[in-house]
Parts: sequence; structure tokens; C-alpha cells
Amino acid sequence: MAQPATPFLRIDLVRLRANVRAMADLSTSSRVALRPHVKTHKTIEIGRLQMSSGAVGITVATIGEAETFAGHGFDDIFIAYPLWLHRPAARRLEDLASSARVAIGVDSVEGVAQASRLLGTSDIEVMVEVDSGQHRSGVRPEDAGAVADTARRAGLTVRGAFTFPGHSYAPGAGRASAAAQESAALAAAATSLRAVGIEPRVLSGGSTPSIADTDLDVVTEIRPGVYCLGDAQQWELGVMKPAQIALTCRATVVSHAGGRVVLDAGSKVLGADRAPYSTGHGRLLEHPDARIVMLAEHHAVVEMGDEAPPALGSKVDVVPNHVCAAVNLVDTLYADEAGALRAWPVAARGRNS
Amino acid sequence: MAQPATPFLRIDLVRLRANVRAMADLSTSSRVALRPHVKTHKTIEIGRLQMSSGAVGITVATIGEAETFAGHGFDDIFIAYPLWLHRPAARRLEDLASSARVAIGVDSVEGVAQASRLLGTSDIEVMVEVDSGQHRSGVRPEDAGAVADTARRAGLTVRGAFTFPGHSYAPGAGRASAAAQESAALAAAATSLRAVGIEPRVLSGGSTPSIADTDLDVVTEIRPGVYCLGDAQQWELGVMKPAQIALTCRATVVSHAGGRVVLDAGSKVLGADRAPYSTGHGRLLEHPDARIVMLAEHHAVVEMGDEAPPALGSKVDVVPNHVCAAVNLVDTLYADEAGALRAWPVAARGRNS
Repeated sequence: MAQPATPFLRIDLVRLRANVRAMADLSTSSRVALRPHVKTHKTIEIGRLQMSSGAVGITVATIGEAETFAGHGFDDIFIAYPLWLHRPAARRLEDLASSARVAIGVDSVEGVAQASRLLGTSDIEVMVEVDSGQHRSGVRPEDAGAVADTARRAGLTVRGAFTFPGHSYAPGAGRASAAAQESAALAAAATSLRAVGIEPRVLSGGSTPSIADTDLDVVTEIRPGVYCLGDAQQWELGVMKPAQIALTCRATVVSHAGGRVVLDAGSKVLGADRAPYSTGHGRLLEHPDARIVMLAEHHAVVEMGDEAPPALGSKVDVVPNHVCAAVNLVDTLYADEAGALRAWPVAARGRNS
Repeated sequence: MAQPATPFLRIDLVRLRANVRAMADLSTSSRVALRPHVKTHKTIEIGRLQMSSGAVGITVATIGEAETFAGHGFDDIFIAYPLWLHRPAARRLEDLASSARVAIGVDSVEGVAQASRLLGTSDIEVMVEVDSGQHRSGVRPEDAGAVADTARRAGLTVRGAFTFPGHSYAPGAGRASAAAQESAALAAAATSLRAVGIEPRVLSGGSTPSIADTDLDVVTEIRPGVYCLGDAQQWELGVMKPAQIALTCRATVVSHAGGRVVLDAGSKVLGADRAPYSTGHGRLLEHPDARIVMLAEHHAVVEMGDEAPPALGSKVDVVPNHVCAAVNLVDTLYADEAGALRAWPVAARGRNS
């Protein structure tokens, strides 16, 4: 197919496959199950690549994402989110469970009670979310048993516990300490479950930055997402090298006004995420000294460092800060293999509920 | 229709109409043309409301947005962006010009040369972009004449000059000084155009925060976008009152873990925009002391101030920091009139090129 108009998101298929393979190999050699989080790519073709490389199933964040993937034959889905169910959501989960093995997150006695009241099937398992230090959702590890016990008494099957060590998104020693807290939290959750007579079958953790430090003797399942595509956050954290980054936004230089370099890729295709450790609003893959110093909806203003500015009308490849946000802004990803492009629909784009 | 699952974006129709009316009244009483920027809402129904209230036409950021609106009968469209044309883009502009009056932005002699080479019609007018102090795109006002003269010699018709005083998004006296720079830049651009014998028919400015301070004796056209819906940025800048905010994200309290209040609205529906002056990642419309202190893709962690936390499973209305970003994340807006919901497609969502 012809090159699409810029800005568009392009995937380097060789790099994508290498990233998927490397994580699959790590999980095999470490004897942990790999259940990649598909919220990163929301794309059936990439999910299939992950499954064919040995993933045990997929992780999603919403019922809508689960429905999209189940509709394409994915049959083992964990919704890693403390859902608060209402009647329509419970019906949707039951429909999902008719074609897939489904587990959902819970992080409160009240949420468990609500789920057990509304769910007409016991086929849906629950995973207790514990907080390993990010302080987002998740109960304290020592409280996991109380939530699990409520679930069991209400007739629900408890699969185990999970956590997201999101504070691994930190420079320096932050990754290793988050990974240590992750393992400690899951070990404590297991102790808490066993204290109420529930043997956890799964202790699930794992984010892309923390996996290298994860104690794979405690954790039985990992749920990385970003690893398959990479982004500027992983680059700047030192988790992935530029040569591993598989997704970029191809952009055109549209202005040199005032001596600036202005690209047609703005926050409506790159996303506005900017972590405290980020050095700008995204990076240029082939120009490591360049920084995006201003981002508007359709403009990126770039400082080139010591390099000459690229010519008006020329193309550059921008690495978004946070790939999950960028992918969720477009309807199509363009997979490039030796210059030939294939259009992959972002099938679960916008499925927020 | 039934209430959609949370999170979803809801529009208060009474407020929307009042906002549209107030800006139309300002433009009438000030005798400036109103050409609202529809990138904010990307929605045909809101564009029609603006046109029926007296807008002279619409402003868009991309050819794709122009195509979407032209396809629904909008026939006077200004693409306020320094397009760098290539052959397919030129063909699309010519198609647009067959059904609508079209103007495009230019901010370089090279861009003008490229446009004149590729465009087979002289029906498309150009507007020279000048920089009024934001330092994004746009030539220096005194250089507007050189760009315009190149355009005229190449057979293009110059309509006038435009600027975006984006640095009006600043607290305190920043708005008024940005507005003063806007007027000065457009006056200087007019002088520069007249020096090469071109009388500008339009001097176009105007952002929602700056309009109250704009010199409407210089500016002949305003292009505000956000005013129709409002957002937390306008609230925190003091440009709009909470009672004027017409778009909110309805969200559910899904977790109380660790004493926190966690909502199911994250960056994938609110957007990750956070200006330096923002006090958090969004506001709660009915809880002005509350702050969103952490935002993940599907989680907002809220500190409630002195208020009691809303119950698990209850609903709250979140005001996104930047409404243009939030709208561009969803396929549908839900317009609420006295509790009855209508689904409005975000017709130009994702039209980045």
C-alpha cells in the first residue's frame, strides 16, 4: 500500500517479533507464565503473535477490551482491574465466560459482594489485587485473605492474587526496589490467602521496567505490556535500547519559522503523557540529541541539539513517551516489513468500559 | 436511551447552548466574525449549533477534519495550520474546494512555493501565520509581507493573516499580555502586507482565554474552540466558572483501598494533559476541593479535601483538564437534556491528517 499521510504510527515488524520472542524466552527459561497486557497495542494481530509465541492468555483492563479479543478467538482473558459491577456489566461478563476462561480483579469486600450478587455463573474466577507500593488500587497484602474469604463464601472461585508495581516507572534504583516490593507483596498475599485456607494458584505481577528484577521464584505469572513496542519512557529509563523500539510516529517537518523545527505530530497522535523523568514530549529515533520542547495538538517543536535541522517537508520518526496512549489515539497501525506496509486495525481502541 | 457504562463523556445541552450563544453575542456586539475552531468537539451537531448562532464558518486543524465537516454540508472552512503539501494532500484540498470555500495557513516561502506547484486551482486562499509570542509556528509579523508576496506572485490569493496567542494559557496577567501581543502582531502583519500592496481582508486571532482582552478594533475574526464546552484549564485560569462547564466525564468509584478514592476514568478518557498551572489531573465538578493526584490509563486517584469520600459504586462527574484531548479519545458524546441522552458521534475523531 501507499505511504499514508503523516502523522501515522508505524511498526517495525522485525523489532516487534524480536521483542515478543525475547519476553517469551524469558518466561520459558524462568518457568513463569506470560500473560501480556494487550492494552498497549489493542490489536488482534499483535495479540496473536504473543499467543503463538507461548503466552498462556492475555491481560486486559476493561470488559470492552475483553469483548474485542474474545470476538477474535482469544479464550483466556484476565481483566486486571477492580471492576465495580452493575447489572449490564455482569451480563457482559457472563457472555464472555461462555466463550473464554475469564478472571476479574477485586480489591474490596464490597466489590466481591456486588459481584457475587450479580453474577449468575461461577465460571468467572477472581484475583485479589494487592498494593505493592504504587498506592493506586489494591488492598494491603495482609488483607488479601479477608477479600478472598468473602469471595469464596459467596460462591466465587479465587484464583490467586495480583499486583502492578507501577512505581517501577522511576529512574535509578527505583525499578529494583519496586520489583522487590512486588515480590514481597505477592508473598505476603499468598500467606494471607493460605491463612484462610485458600491456596493461590497464581501470583501475578510484572511490568516492563520491573521484570528484569522480579523474583521469579515468588511470581508465577507476568503481565508486561509495553515490552512488545517500546517507547521513550522505556528508552529514558534504560529498560529498552533505541534499536529495540518497534513503534514510531512518522511525521513531516512543516515549519522552520523562527529557526524552529516544527513537526505535524502533536498530542493528538503522540499523547500528552510526560513523566517526571521524561526529558521532553517524545524523542526522535534517529536523532538522540533532539528534544521535543513544546507539544500542541498538531505541533511538536523540536530542538535539534548540535545537528542541522531536517529540511522542510522531510520526514522524521518520533518515539512517543507512552506507547499505550499513542496507540489509543489512532484507528490503524501500519506494520512495515522491508518497506511493505500492512494496515492493522486498533480493534479495541477507545474500549474504556 | 439507557445510561452508558462509565466512563463516558456527557454534555449538558443547556450549558453548551448558553456558551455558544454568549460567544456569538460577543462577536455580534464587537462586529468581529466568529469562526469557531471545531477541533475542540469534532462533532457535527455542535458545529451546526455554532453556525446557526451566527458563525461565519469553521476553523479546523487538518485536511481530514475539513473533509469530515464538508461532508456534512459545512461550506466555509479555514485550515489554520501551516500545511506542507504533497500531491495526495493537494488533490484532497481541490476536492474540498469543489464544495466549500477553503483557506489554508502558510508560514514559509518554501511552503507557499510547494502549494502553488501542486494546487491546480486558485480557489483556495491562503492566510499567512504570524507568531505573536507563543513561538510555535508562524513567521515574524514583519515577514508576513514576504510570504504573502510570494504567494501572490505564484497565483495564490492572500486573504490575510492569522495568529494563535497560545501563551494566553497562563495564570494571572499572562492572558492580557498575550492578547496585547496578538493585536500588535496582527497589526504589524497588516502593515507588512500593505507594504507589498496586499490589503488584508481578514486578521484572525482569538483563543478562549484571550478573547476578553483581545483588541477587537484590530482583529476582524476570532477562532475560539474550548469556550463551547469548557474544561479544568479554563476553570483554573479563571476564564470560565464551574457552572459554565458543559462537558464532564461520568465515572464510577471502583476502589476505596488504602482509604483512597479511585475512579474508573483514567488518561484514556480524560487525556494526560497537565499544564504547569494545573492543580491536578482534572477536577470534580461537584467537589471543588477535590484533586486528582494520580492518573493512570484507567484509574484516577482522588484526594477529597475535607469532604467524605463518595461511596463505592457511586458516580461522580470529572472535568478533564483539556477538553479537546478528552473528546478525541471517544467515539461518542452523550448530550443530556433534562436527563434524556442523545448519542452524538465524534465524527472527526482521530482525523490527524
